[in-house]
Amino acid sequence: MVPHLVTALNGPLFDLEKNILAATPAIERWFRLEWQEHTPPFYCSVDLRNAGFKLAPVDTNLFPGGFNNLSAEMLPLAVQAAMAAIEKYCPDAKNLLLIPERHTRNTFYLQNIARLVQIFRQTGLNVRLGSLSEELTEPTPIQLPDGTTLMLEPLEYQQGGRRLGLKNFDPCTILLNNDLSSGIPAILENLHEQNVLPPLHAGWAVRRKSNHFAAYDEVVKKFAKLIDVDPWMLNPFFAKCQDVNFQEHDGEERLAANVDSLLTKIRKKYREYGIKEAPFVIVKADAGTYGMGIMTVTDARQIKDLNHKQRSKMAVVKEGLAVTDVILQEGVPTFERINDAVAEPVVYMIDRYVVGGFYRVHAERAINENLNAPGAHFVPLAFAQPHALPDMHAKPGTAAPNRFYMYGVVARLALLAASLELEKTDPNPEIY
Amino acid sequence: MVPHLVTALNGPLFDLEKNILAATPAIERWFRLEWQEHTPPFYCSVDLRNAGFKLAPVDTNLFPGGFNNLSAEMLPLAVQAAMAAIEKYCPDAKNLLLIPERHTRNTFYLQNIARLVQIFRQTGLNVRLGSLSEELTEPTPIQLPDGTTLMLEPLEYQQGGRRLGLKNFDPCTILLNNDLSSGIPAILENLHEQNVLPPLHAGWAVRRKSNHFAAYDEVVKKFAKLIDVDPWMLNPFFAKCQDVNFQEHDGEERLAANVDSLLTKIRKKYREYGIKEAPFVIVKADAGTYGMGIMTVTDARQIKDLNHKQRSKMAVVKEGLAVTDVILQEGVPTFERINDAVAEPVVYMIDRYVVGGFYRVHAERAINENLNAPGAHFVPLAFAQPHALPDMHAKPGTAAPNRFYMYGVVARLALLAASLELEKTDPNPEIY
Repeated sequence: MVPHLVTALNGPLFDLEKNILAATPAIERWFRLEWQEHTPPFYCSVDLRNAGFKLAPVDTNLFPGGFNNLSAEMLPLAVQAAMAAIEKYCPDAKNLLLIPERHTRNTFYLQNIARLVQIFRQTGLNVRLGSLSEELTEPTPIQLPDGTTLMLEPLEYQQGGRRLGLKNFDPCTILLNNDLSSGIPAILENLHEQNVLPPLHAGWAVRRKSNHFAAYDEVVKKFAKLIDVDPWMLNPFFAKCQDVNFQEHDGEERLAANVDSLLTKIRKKYREYGIKEAPFVIVKADAGTYGMGIMTVTDARQIKDLNHKQRSKMAVVKEGLAVTDVILQEGVPTFERINDAVAEPVVYMIDRYVVGGFYRVHAERAINENLNAPGAHFVPLAFAQPHALPDMHAKPGTAAPNRFYMYGVVARLALLAASLELEKTDPNPEIY
Repeated sequence: MVPHLVTALNGPLFDLEKNILAATPAIERWFRLEWQEHTPPFYCSVDLRNAGFKLAPVDTNLFPGGFNNLSAEMLPLAVQAAMAAIEKYCPDAKNLLLIPERHTRNTFYLQNIARLVQIFRQTGLNVRLGSLSEELTEPTPIQLPDGTTLMLEPLEYQQGGRRLGLKNFDPCTILLNNDLSSGIPAILENLHEQNVLPPLHAGWAVRRKSNHFAAYDEVVKKFAKLIDVDPWMLNPFFAKCQDVNFQEHDGEERLAANVDSLLTKIRKKYREYGIKEAPFVIVKADAGTYGMGIMTVTDARQIKDLNHKQRSKMAVVKEGLAVTDVILQEGVPTFERINDAVAEPVVYMIDRYVVGGFYRVHAERAINENLNAPGAHFVPLAFAQPHALPDMHAKPGTAAPNRFYMYGVVARLALLAASLELEKTDPNPEIY
């Protein structure tokens, strides 16, 4: 199951939540059996949107940043899950090489790295940081706001170029916290008996959101049958649209037509369930992350009316990667608020275990907008207080509603989808 | 690794602790490799004694009570470890039958059962309680001090006597929290495709402390070589003495001679390390638990001088089991105190994970006495505060000493010894 955390929302549980809570033993058994067949990604964070009438993942990150936003009391849980993960890949591990993003001066991001170092040191590994940046040619200490220091070191081949490490450091496992947006570095390829985690094809050089959500479709179809709900309750409609050039207006008609047909599908569902909200579609790059190249569309005509600035924003994502393929995703309005600001829960997992979560809160964004943008702040989810520990066998009204459990379930559905996605897109399935 | 908890002792680390902390990556790797070869007991608690110059387990309980004495914040860790354990034995589990001790009216003990129920419910299992008591013929609710209720139910065969369960309840796993001191109930034998955990030969009807400590000798010999310390630093000397009848004075001479030779061995070690404490030996029943049938001896002559009351106390343990075989164990004085009262740490594990601990504190006992006796109270170990999170890579003096880590290591050595012990004493090794 998952840690019991206090969520912002503490009104009555909705039908979907009641269904999920009632089916807990069946759900947990189902996950256990699925994990017998599929290997979970090493780690993962999932952005969720809770519309009240529907709860769905909207982004599944296989190189999660933000571990520093989890509350410190979740650390032992993360350490225990990391032990289970390491044991699976390399039981005789002593050394772990962690490769962070290149932009080495972002102290917010580096606090995430510091937290990861802490987690893996506490599993009993020697952890050192290797940089993919070619400008980093000698060990470089970086001061963090809390006064501690991270040491970034240049990568160095070991054993005559067959293994990658650092000076006097031959790791058994190389853990990437770099999403490879700018391509797969040759230095990471063809290594000898070293685990590169997540695998290289999980990076945005290869990975596509549309593959992930296609796998999620499959997972949710099975799961929805298990708990007897409409799969749509847990799943945003999506479509993909290739060979679009926003600057040159190429593929614009096709994109608008796709948006229109998606809005029509959503409208039909909204009518079916008597939902009064205005349907919207999120258009985003099929590859890439960091909330760039993303927009909210409520009418297909908006596509043709994009101004120059909007077009340039959609045309490139992180590290200058050009956008030609986009995914259109049913927008899920977020129902949750913290102090009147719009909030979405983000759930963190290591191996198959939920290890914590937080709310991403944005005071200047609307309920139908992307919150992963400058100005967002993070509110860690803390453990539920002992007196409020939820118990589904308690009499109704005598225990706090266990809303976070449902978030953990849906996040794990996305985790399982990522596992299927990585299996299907593996270029070398025989050595997987 | 293990949760980072605040211990009572916060003076400087001793040499043994420094050795253990420095070798953390090697130690964790060693445990990972050992757990590839051996299956840990389902759950376990270990009583430790820290003498400053030496740290050793003195009792390894395979049917641990006292889960309710762990702090509530450890619960998620226990749930996660229980998920890993269940997955190993029965991934398609939905129903768990928990069998508590017979003495159903002890509310302290029943709070332990309530906590176990909570842990396993939160892993997503249906949990119900079955009683071995023949007097319990219908479902019987028992009120706990916190106002909640436990329902004890009579056991009932399922599927024509091939499987054991409750009315309308066919469990895949039967978890014993009953140490079988009074023998193995026939009802638990020869069940069809049901896991009985721990296995029946882990119960005191079959189990012997001397087998456990013989296995512990082996484990510590390997481990001490790894971290380059004298195995004695982690291991109490022991000897066993069979066919003793305290009431009839049978075997008294032999027992006294054994005590004397053990005291001589301890004295020699004390001289080697310049230890000024007075050596003592603990004499206790080779089978059985609950701190009964146990005494502290500082001179072999005390054996012959036992008075009538002392003899009767040694002659029987729990459930009236007669004592004929005893184990003599080097006494380890406890160095730890909470508010001037003598304290010993107790570490809890589920599967191979440390999930928490507490201090057993006894204000009326001396440092060389058994603390598991009426009048003891329990001080849960809480997580270290975030600002005090120990980091072995921190500069000396900048981080709180991580004493609890060492407790977790030694407790896991005892856990591993229990695993070897159960392998060696298994009456049906082929189906183990």
